[in-house]
Amino acid sequence: MPEIAGVAKRVARARYKEWDRCDLTYVEFDAGTVVAGVTTRNICCSSEVELCRDNLKGGKARALVVNAGNSNAFTGYRGREAVEAITNQVAAHLGCSPTEIFVSSTGVIGVPLPKDKAQAGLRAAFDAPLCNWQEVADTIGTTDTFAKGAKAIAIVDGKRIEIVGVIKGSGMIAPDMATMLGYIFTDVAVEPAFLQTLLSEANSSTFSCITVDSDTSTSDTVLAFATGKAGNAILTGHDDTGADAFASALHDVCRQLAHLVVRDGEGAQKFIAIHVTGAASDGSARRIGLAIANSPLVKTAIAGEDANWGRVVMAVGKAGEPADRDRLSISFGATQVANNGLPVDGYDETPVAAHLKGQEIGIGVDIGLGSGSATVWTCDLTHGYISINADYRS
Amino acid sequence: MPEIAGVAKRVARARYKEWDRCDLTYVEFDAGTVVAGVTTRNICCSSEVELCRDNLKGGKARALVVNAGNSNAFTGYRGREAVEAITNQVAAHLGCSPTEIFVSSTGVIGVPLPKDKAQAGLRAAFDAPLCNWQEVADTIGTTDTFAKGAKAIAIVDGKRIEIVGVIKGSGMIAPDMATMLGYIFTDVAVEPAFLQTLLSEANSSTFSCITVDSDTSTSDTVLAFATGKAGNAILTGHDDTGADAFASALHDVCRQLAHLVVRDGEGAQKFIAIHVTGAASDGSARRIGLAIANSPLVKTAIAGEDANWGRVVMAVGKAGEPADRDRLSISFGATQVANNGLPVDGYDETPVAAHLKGQEIGIGVDIGLGSGSATVWTCDLTHGYISINADYRS
Repeated sequence: MPEIAGVAKRVARARYKEWDRCDLTYVEFDAGTVVAGVTTRNICCSSEVELCRDNLKGGKARALVVNAGNSNAFTGYRGREAVEAITNQVAAHLGCSPTEIFVSSTGVIGVPLPKDKAQAGLRAAFDAPLCNWQEVADTIGTTDTFAKGAKAIAIVDGKRIEIVGVIKGSGMIAPDMATMLGYIFTDVAVEPAFLQTLLSEANSSTFSCITVDSDTSTSDTVLAFATGKAGNAILTGHDDTGADAFASALHDVCRQLAHLVVRDGEGAQKFIAIHVTGAASDGSARRIGLAIANSPLVKTAIAGEDANWGRVVMAVGKAGEPADRDRLSISFGATQVANNGLPVDGYDETPVAAHLKGQEIGIGVDIGLGSGSATVWTCDLTHGYISINADYRS
Repeated sequence: MPEIAGVAKRVARARYKEWDRCDLTYVEFDAGTVVAGVTTRNICCSSEVELCRDNLKGGKARALVVNAGNSNAFTGYRGREAVEAITNQVAAHLGCSPTEIFVSSTGVIGVPLPKDKAQAGLRAAFDAPLCNWQEVADTIGTTDTFAKGAKAIAIVDGKRIEIVGVIKGSGMIAPDMATMLGYIFTDVAVEPAFLQTLLSEANSSTFSCITVDSDTSTSDTVLAFATGKAGNAILTGHDDTGADAFASALHDVCRQLAHLVVRDGEGAQKFIAIHVTGAASDGSARRIGLAIANSPLVKTAIAGEDANWGRVVMAVGKAGEPADRDRLSISFGATQVANNGLPVDGYDETPVAAHLKGQEIGIGVDIGLGSGSATVWTCDLTHGYISINADYRS
């Protein structure tokens, strides 16, 4: 993955857990870098998430710190003190405002982040050599089984701009909490408010359309940093030259990152894409898709390579969205299995069974009511999920 | 369990599946029997559920037919024809209106109920000897691992009245759909509208407060039949003598039946009661409780006897209900683990670990906002659930 002008990356050992690996990531941005972000809707969010929300209002970023091994969520004033210590230390190091420092933490809930380890780790990071994206992706991960990154380019105002993203999740080993932390870096010149608009738009059809197990983390955060080094005329709105190209490339990186999280879902053996069409609205289509994607019965049927489409019917019906049983059509792969409320005439399970033996599963649902559509991605529910979350204790 | 005056029960073999067991239940009621019921909110409900809803408007019942092995859901006009054939056959046999016949079916989705098997099974049932409640509970079951029944008595207007209930679910073997079918029989004299009020009230804090896997069936049905043979002055409202005693006994039977379903939840090894207090309203408390009860991470932690209370925090936060992280208190068994947004001082996991080794788990959550409360019951999520729903195909 390419370097992004204006971004300097370093990793260090804070030793938040009993391990000998880098677990603190420190990314420094040149002055002039703008930032946008989306964070978890979980009410019990961490102090880090609250800090990001506060600092996003300023739209400026000089550094990002990511701690792996402790989420610092539900740790009250002690957690807040640790976050403040980090931002103050970095701000002093850079000679900038603490409001330009962004911090994330991921790991166990309910244990205050040890302030002294964070501060010593930061001192080591300040002096560390520059590292590559692979090292960053490895360092932000906890129980991920592979490092996850994505890239895209766009031509904006005649300039080639680069976008790189790294993400961690949704691997999880008891008792650690699944968290998704994603970071996107680009050299485009863009106003922070417009970057926020583009990130929110991309988020709604990528990160907000994936689910591994329906459990929304206390720490989910996606931040996008733009250094402006590409030299394009600054993007301020959708009508600007190259804005659509950048929006498309940003969406592409978000989609790639979101898919990587699902592919590394706990115990996942199959990647499932659920396409919902004909719903009352796009939002309704997404909620129906998530009801299917979160159904333990649908997910276990896919794990068992069982063409049990009746479970999809059940999930549509329980979604609480407008639907008419007798207009519903369902397909698995390229095969329609049910139409207008009953099985298709002469339904032959053979091609469906063959499709389910693969690792890329497609489920199509047409609600038959309107023009709303959405695609949602998930993975199957296997013994691996139970083993990861129940059998092994840290 | 006691006989109920005015209720005649018979079972027969319709052979809906390749098995040699009774799978058709036929219960006849004396004229004058009234009925109330609650049915699934799943939009893709079966023709049987639609029939029950229509016929409940009349408030009168002469017979109940329950088919096990085929849910007849999502079978379009063919399914409706089968249900109509059953009601017409029974109405002709009894010389009553088809609107006084109630039918349920449970089993695989998407296969029309074979009309000829149903009709032959009914003929056999008409001629069968009377049977006991155990045989009824066995016959309505599909993959249940034990027969489920409950009883209660109440003194109403100086008369002893009896209430008996049987229920099936939520055992499930792929590819069968989990369905909960519950039937309550009593000799009390009660107006159907008041019986409906009482059943709806009981339902809201019993059947509506259990979950095994968050998947709402297409066929869930609970019906209450009252023959009026106890001889009490007919109950018409809460102010009548004995109405509260009957309401309490009815609630007791519903609660017992609901608990039996959870105890037989697929793969369940532990019975979990979640008590939510201090919520903005009772409804909010129930929704928070269900968010916890449906969280795969909470359920797998309990399966692993892991005191991972951070997952409860996460589930409260994602429920979408009013909550304040910094007022939240959580207990496992009798031990408070977190208070006011952070772990309690000197938290000792020992008593919590001991509690989690048992089979009856209690989780207490105080939201700290209002006076709303609710109790929700569920079971743990184990390898057994995956095996039942993924590994074995019918």
